[in-house]
Amino acid sequence: MSRRRIAVLDTTLRDGEQAPGIVMGPDAKAEMARRLELAGVDVVEAGFAASSSSDFEAIRRISGCVRGCVVCSLARAVGHDVRKAAKALEFARHPRIHVFIGSSRLHMEEKLRMHPLDVVDRAAAMVRLARAYCDDVEFSPEDSSRADPSFLCSLARAAVEAGATIVNVTDTVGHGIPEQLSDVAGMLCRSVPISDRVTLSVHCHNDVGLALANTMAAIACGAGQAECTVTGIGERAGNAALEEVVVAAGLERSGAGMDVRVDPRHMRSIAQLASAIARRRLPATKPVVGCHAFAHASGIHQDGVIKNRRTYEALRAEDVGGRGGSIVLGKLSGAHALRDRLEGGGVTIGAMGIHRLATMMKGLASNLPVVYGHTLAALHALASRPC
Amino acid sequence: MSRRRIAVLDTTLRDGEQAPGIVMGPDAKAEMARRLELAGVDVVEAGFAASSSSDFEAIRRISGCVRGCVVCSLARAVGHDVRKAAKALEFARHPRIHVFIGSSRLHMEEKLRMHPLDVVDRAAAMVRLARAYCDDVEFSPEDSSRADPSFLCSLARAAVEAGATIVNVTDTVGHGIPEQLSDVAGMLCRSVPISDRVTLSVHCHNDVGLALANTMAAIACGAGQAECTVTGIGERAGNAALEEVVVAAGLERSGAGMDVRVDPRHMRSIAQLASAIARRRLPATKPVVGCHAFAHASGIHQDGVIKNRRTYEALRAEDVGGRGGSIVLGKLSGAHALRDRLEGGGVTIGAMGIHRLATMMKGLASNLPVVYGHTLAALHALASRPC
Repeated sequence: MSRRRIAVLDTTLRDGEQAPGIVMGPDAKAEMARRLELAGVDVVEAGFAASSSSDFEAIRRISGCVRGCVVCSLARAVGHDVRKAAKALEFARHPRIHVFIGSSRLHMEEKLRMHPLDVVDRAAAMVRLARAYCDDVEFSPEDSSRADPSFLCSLARAAVEAGATIVNVTDTVGHGIPEQLSDVAGMLCRSVPISDRVTLSVHCHNDVGLALANTMAAIACGAGQAECTVTGIGERAGNAALEEVVVAAGLERSGAGMDVRVDPRHMRSIAQLASAIARRRLPATKPVVGCHAFAHASGIHQDGVIKNRRTYEALRAEDVGGRGGSIVLGKLSGAHALRDRLEGGGVTIGAMGIHRLATMMKGLASNLPVVYGHTLAALHALASRPC
Repeated sequence: MSRRRIAVLDTTLRDGEQAPGIVMGPDAKAEMARRLELAGVDVVEAGFAASSSSDFEAIRRISGCVRGCVVCSLARAVGHDVRKAAKALEFARHPRIHVFIGSSRLHMEEKLRMHPLDVVDRAAAMVRLARAYCDDVEFSPEDSSRADPSFLCSLARAAVEAGATIVNVTDTVGHGIPEQLSDVAGMLCRSVPISDRVTLSVHCHNDVGLALANTMAAIACGAGQAECTVTGIGERAGNAALEEVVVAAGLERSGAGMDVRVDPRHMRSIAQLASAIARRRLPATKPVVGCHAFAHASGIHQDGVIKNRRTYEALRAEDVGGRGGSIVLGKLSGAHALRDRLEGGGVTIGAMGIHRLATMMKGLASNLPVVYGHTLAALHALASRPC
């Protein structure tokens, strides 16, 4: 069976920057965009041109230096924003304007204060305007997962008739569960309809911890583009994470594998760059890219990993740019890991000695999170003294 | 429709402590266990009695002070571990011994170096031994998601015939995807079989970012117990997170809501305690409990939230022990948020003034991640000066 191709839109530079306390200037954004292009991302959403002169400048800069993938700017469904986006993208080789407008009753009544029919008219008019500048126009009905399904279909159809080439299912507030995203994606695929000319996209937030699962559910039901950010940085609890989407979509298991162009071996270095630019420490336990993602501290796991890394590592660390089989000595470590560490340092030790040293190490480590090499060496010297 | 009851087993004190660099002594464990009991957790897995004298002591301490829920100790399927667990739990009001043994070919051949039939015999014998001490015995076929399905069923059946009251589907290395967990859970429910006397449990790791989705998939297919840790701390990329499981399982959406006894209003304070005990900074973007989970930095979102918090918050922050609608001023903030902040401080400002101040703030914030109150006050004074 040939694998279905899934495009990846990275919005670290737009939705990622919307996280509290993150600011990225044009230089940082351009560096990140080039790295994303190199990794094989299909679309870089570079910013929101109308939001600030700094973002306008960043999009212009990226349009000039990123030539191998699509460069995109967000725009509200207002003329000023669409024109600013078009202007910022004027020198891009593959430009895309991304127009959005609220689609749930809550967003239309409480935020936009617009009648639903006016929302449809505005969306169509602004997509048409964007198409006057650019052949590639994405339309996002914001807050899709809370929208009335039949209204959502009408709105998406109007946008496609006006020229939208991508329609984006959005779980703007992380409200959805996988079954819901499946339903909405399936419904839009049938009713818009999705064709060679029109792609369905999915954009999920992680408020309940389901951004990846929701993204995968929409992909399984026809979405051909996944939107994400590096390490999931973004508003509130963030977005679906690029590295998780790339790994999960590519899994061969149960025939669900998709064809994703992004090379997962770039994931760890890109995550480190994003953390540096965003001035956010990368959590140790971050799936795929965290420094503990392939580290083992319990004796049973260490014993297994020393015998065969696959016993406790489902992914090959090298496939995602990491190093696997890392052994961290501590309170729960056992004799196997201890012997392995000592032998790695050229120290041989008998059965009695290792037992005594393991007992001492466990005692010490009950008040010490990690036993590093120099502490172990000191402990070994102490244990080797005649009683 | 009556909601199905799902028990929650928290293993922060056992699997959480297996994370590299985390060590918790008996005092810290006892404090955490009491908080978990207070929040309504059904089972506290307090540790692994045979792994260290400190853990043995912690389980004994918790057995004495936690009386309202089950207290559990892990044990390998070896007599020494089972007896240690039983001894540590001897004064518990509701004790549980949790026996595990590898069930995948990889674990049996490479780690245990045991024949599958010997694994079945050993599991049955050790469950029987555990039952001699305790009426409540959980059996975990480790690495279930990579086990041969028919072997897994035989092993689980043997454990139940030997007296196991809980059978735990384990995605030990975070290898599974939701479809797989559904299949395994459904298969075990039918073939073990699950009854009033025997509960199916699920235990997932987050290596690909699917721990929560996999947990929910198994619950939907019959699991009656979910295992998790506070903020997901645990080996490698960690476990399913307590706060996410509690919120997701309780969602009313699409009729999937389950009856969970844990009170979600305790989630934020428990996460803060776990972070302090584990000496791990709580990531700002952590779903449900992170300090940015209900914070807004972009102008469009701030405008929406000021009008009605629900526009950009799917959960009620108060329901999970947090505070919602937090506005963070920065580069992407707009005039609405600025006016709201000033008026909150008793400052009224005209349309011209707010426009000028917003432009100045955006310029300043292009190099400043967050504009705090005192900076804003200084900027307002500057903007108010006659030109």
